[in-house]
Amino acid sequence: MNKKNIYLLGATGSIGTQTLDVIDNNPDKYELITISFGRQIDKGIEIIKKFKPKFVSTMDSKDALKIKLLFPEIEVGFGDEGLIHAATYDSYNSNENLVVTAVVGSVGLTPTIKAIKKGYNIGLANKETLVTAGHLVMKLAEENHVKILPIDSEHAAIFQCLNGEDPSKVEQLIITASGGSFRDKTREELVYVTIKDALNHPNWSMGAKITIDSATMMNKGLEVIEAHWLFNLPYERISTILHKESVIHSMVEFIDTAVIAQLGTPDMRIPIQYALAYPERIVSKNSRRLNLAEIGKLNFKEMDYNRFPCLKFAYDAGIKGGSMPTVLNAANEAAVGLFLQGKIKFLDIEKLIYQQIESHHIISNPDLETVLALDQEIKAKVSSLQIERS
Amino acid sequence: MNKKNIYLLGATGSIGTQTLDVIDNNPDKYELITISFGRQIDKGIEIIKKFKPKFVSTMDSKDALKIKLLFPEIEVGFGDEGLIHAATYDSYNSNENLVVTAVVGSVGLTPTIKAIKKGYNIGLANKETLVTAGHLVMKLAEENHVKILPIDSEHAAIFQCLNGEDPSKVEQLIITASGGSFRDKTREELVYVTIKDALNHPNWSMGAKITIDSATMMNKGLEVIEAHWLFNLPYERISTILHKESVIHSMVEFIDTAVIAQLGTPDMRIPIQYALAYPERIVSKNSRRLNLAEIGKLNFKEMDYNRFPCLKFAYDAGIKGGSMPTVLNAANEAAVGLFLQGKIKFLDIEKLIYQQIESHHIISNPDLETVLALDQEIKAKVSSLQIERS
Repeated sequence: MNKKNIYLLGATGSIGTQTLDVIDNNPDKYELITISFGRQIDKGIEIIKKFKPKFVSTMDSKDALKIKLLFPEIEVGFGDEGLIHAATYDSYNSNENLVVTAVVGSVGLTPTIKAIKKGYNIGLANKETLVTAGHLVMKLAEENHVKILPIDSEHAAIFQCLNGEDPSKVEQLIITASGGSFRDKTREELVYVTIKDALNHPNWSMGAKITIDSATMMNKGLEVIEAHWLFNLPYERISTILHKESVIHSMVEFIDTAVIAQLGTPDMRIPIQYALAYPERIVSKNSRRLNLAEIGKLNFKEMDYNRFPCLKFAYDAGIKGGSMPTVLNAANEAAVGLFLQGKIKFLDIEKLIYQQIESHHIISNPDLETVLALDQEIKAKVSSLQIERS
Repeated sequence: MNKKNIYLLGATGSIGTQTLDVIDNNPDKYELITISFGRQIDKGIEIIKKFKPKFVSTMDSKDALKIKLLFPEIEVGFGDEGLIHAATYDSYNSNENLVVTAVVGSVGLTPTIKAIKKGYNIGLANKETLVTAGHLVMKLAEENHVKILPIDSEHAAIFQCLNGEDPSKVEQLIITASGGSFRDKTREELVYVTIKDALNHPNWSMGAKITIDSATMMNKGLEVIEAHWLFNLPYERISTILHKESVIHSMVEFIDTAVIAQLGTPDMRIPIQYALAYPERIVSKNSRRLNLAEIGKLNFKEMDYNRFPCLKFAYDAGIKGGSMPTVLNAANEAAVGLFLQGKIKFLDIEKLIYQQIESHHIISNPDLETVLALDQEIKAKVSSLQIERS
């Protein structure tokens, strides 16, 4: 078997680090060709020493220069252009190419689109890409015969449940939700929560933004929109259910009432590896096997849209379509950013998002330029609104 | 789409009746060509009136004659030969042929083998066929390019979980067990249980023999042996787990630790229909959809071999192989028969089985004649032993 070339956007983050773990465990299968990272230069240097990528992109030019001085044999880049170069680097070999987009937020969109146009398959850990521009990305992927392999545990689960099945026989997708850090709190109690509370997810160890998104349930909303695009199903055929153990990662119900589910320990290396190895399955080194007898009980509860309005916003935005999901996503990214900077309270996140989606006039079928401009515009607006409010 | 020809062995039993329900719901897809039944002639006559099969086999010649007088246009047969004829009847059309073997016990073996030799696909609800002669049946099926489609809910679940997957990447099969009617009783309490208690299964409405097998956990043991043959896996890769809700019908764990499960309401029409429609899925009329939020909790518990020695007997018999599973199955059939006739106590079932498997000298790779002779011999022995004991 030929090696696969891996282009890893967001190498120092949670998904990035775990992707490197999978590559490290399977040196005969994967070669890390490029990486990008943001501000964690020390971690970046460690990765470069260990994996010797051919090209490295940093956020700042200063860091790129530092890398060049330390590793003169390595090509470097920075900023948006560097990120694009990391996603589209030419390897000049016949191996399969897989870009793992593990950057956070809509910044992942343009490099993903460029990689698709180049014919590179995508391991998609950046759900904002499909949320903000699913109509463009999926169309391009089809035109370029590119596989979009989901790395989110829920979508990887659904993807596996659909193995060998006829997609036209799907009744609904059932996305499970742990409920996030505040699942046992009432809305009244949410008024007083802190950043530290919010970052303490009960099951998964993840990056800051997705952990906050889990606490607001916006993460599930983004996943619903992502699932709509990935699996080409209308929103009324995508449901969510509270399942606090995160053992069933998601399910597919078929027209004969049979339900296929994918289960496992909460370990992101499993879906990452599945995307990397697809269409094969390979042994997971260091991952724990599921032991249901030890777990004893799996709990399920109906989703409560009043408790989690962000999920409702996402369904509404998805159903309205056009530019609305872009607005939802941009407002959420900006609001979560403000919360993580300590500038707004937890419940302000949903208020800021609501203001934006309520006042937006939908542009139907927006092109890439429109999406990118709108994304910037909404993010700026949310920040300025916040200033007025405080 | 062409219709499928259905040959239904055991039409008046629990699986038979539900198979007719599926056929009745899909008159454009299936045509009932032959049926067999035992002593329930009134039910048999109703079926003949409604479905107008071409050939009917009864247990007794008297009943066959009665059918012939009532329906002169229908061909009739009876006994072992009639059953074989029902399984191998010539339809003289180009439709796919599917024999549903819903008879109980090793009586299903010979007709199944004859149908396979004729190239008819098998919808296998008669697990004793594979338990008693899996090595012969699977080899013949392969040679004749015949599909063996499992109708047991557990095996249908595993079959679905393996859709689109590489069987060489399976780590283990996990067969779920409800625990049967006596799951909450201690072994001490089992001394006093009655036939009526034993026939009261908490989740499934099934025939008498399988309901008793569920109470002794021999049913799970037979399923382990059935799974061994159907999915070509060694016994150390087939495990069982207690799951009292019977919502997860079984699971497959892969080498990457991912687990795929099939779930649904406990409704045998779903696996029956899956086998009938395979490789398609069709809408299940009248079947309830699974509602996990309503169910709330799924429970799992490690299997206890001391509490359920019959399961241990089955694993041991399977691992020893050769003629041992035939002995296990025959002893069990005879012992359950005695219990249902009120001649022995519940815990005598396992004692009678143990006596037979302990004293048997294994014949390796027994041929069909040896299997059939041994089956008769052990059944006769168990009955006579019983008489000595009483």
